[in-house]
Amino acid sequence: MSYVLYYSPGTASLALHWMLIELGAPFEAVCADIDKGEHKTPEFLRLNPAGRVPVLIVDGKAHAEVAAMLMLLAERDPERRFDVSAGAPERASYLQRMVFLANTLQPAYRDWFYADEAAGPENVEATMAHARARIEGALARMDANLADGRTYMLGERLTALDFLATMLTRWSRNMPNPATSWPHLKAYVNRMRAMPSLIEVHRREGLTDWING
Amino acid sequence: MSYVLYYSPGTASLALHWMLIELGAPFEAVCADIDKGEHKTPEFLRLNPAGRVPVLIVDGKAHAEVAAMLMLLAERDPERRFDVSAGAPERASYLQRMVFLANTLQPAYRDWFYADEAAGPENVEATMAHARARIEGALARMDANLADGRTYMLGERLTALDFLATMLTRWSRNMPNPATSWPHLKAYVNRMRAMPSLIEVHRREGLTDWING
Repeated sequence: MSYVLYYSPGTASLALHWMLIELGAPFEAVCADIDKGEHKTPEFLRLNPAGRVPVLIVDGKAHAEVAAMLMLLAERDPERRFDVSAGAPERASYLQRMVFLANTLQPAYRDWFYADEAAGPENVEATMAHARARIEGALARMDANLADGRTYMLGERLTALDFLATMLTRWSRNMPNPATSWPHLKAYVNRMRAMPSLIEVHRREGLTDWING
Repeated sequence: MSYVLYYSPGTASLALHWMLIELGAPFEAVCADIDKGEHKTPEFLRLNPAGRVPVLIVDGKAHAEVAAMLMLLAERDPERRFDVSAGAPERASYLQRMVFLANTLQPAYRDWFYADEAAGPENVEATMAHARARIEGALARMDANLADGRTYMLGERLTALDFLATMLTRWSRNMPNPATSWPHLKAYVNRMRAMPSLIEVHRREGLTDWING
């Protein structure tokens, strides 16, 4: 059960890279630097026609979508340490929140960072304003979810959801209202940033901001 | 194992409504008509703070996100007829494509139908043009996926993915290039439209277009 991860530093691949380290699973990491356009080469597009990282090779086949691959890695782990298995009481919340982060918060960031793609270069400002409102709305929901004092997104156990949630809070670090502007989210992020595997993935990807911030 | 579904005719709730009928699971359907603003009442917002249908009550708790709830219903079915279980060979593709539809095609439709929300009323035209390109790109990918002659999205077995995929092809019916413009997708959609449960959900929701088209 060895994996190959195609990643670009600090992008959506970070959550998978981080989980692979935390799992202690055997894997090879291949850098496909999006700043150098390495995610748009014919070779890469054969792996993922959408031209996006991450790509995870599982049993010889290439797969995309970070939320999906986090769920997959968690359930393929022999000990299922970060999985919320079918039939578990938190299963519905787990699936709902994974999909919510993947289809609400994550695309809003895409509009924020690549605003010209969403409505054209002439509408960048309006697109960013709307993206920001959606991002802040989602962060506020995450904060409210933590208001009961829970340690992790689903309670007292670290799950795949936390890898996705933490990465998506990281993306707000240079925004007017970063995730750490919300009190419960701030405490959560600080807990997560103390994880040695999260520090290690920053080191391996050559990232120096946010992790000690 | 009885469910309550809050739905609005012809919206994202249709896939769940359809699957509940196909499963033969006991459920109650409650109409929250978005044309009448019934998804924005204080009562509804307590169920789903995002103010969107569907909401599915599972074991007394309210859950949103159609892709997540389709996966949940499929795995809670005692016979798991439409599930692709953890460990199955198609599991990675199943998760990847569920998330892809949920975070690429579904939000692009949101931009198409509610273009003023994405970048403001002054940018509706540009937003719609970009949304259309993303929708058509995703439909083209779905068509390519069917080009090997398979019956369903993952092969020869109907899965939860088909309920989501078929509903999302339906949404293109009044667009310049509806899903049926692509040859493999057209054959697929026609197969799916012959399903008695899909005809039945149209009847129950009072929908008269597309199903016999």
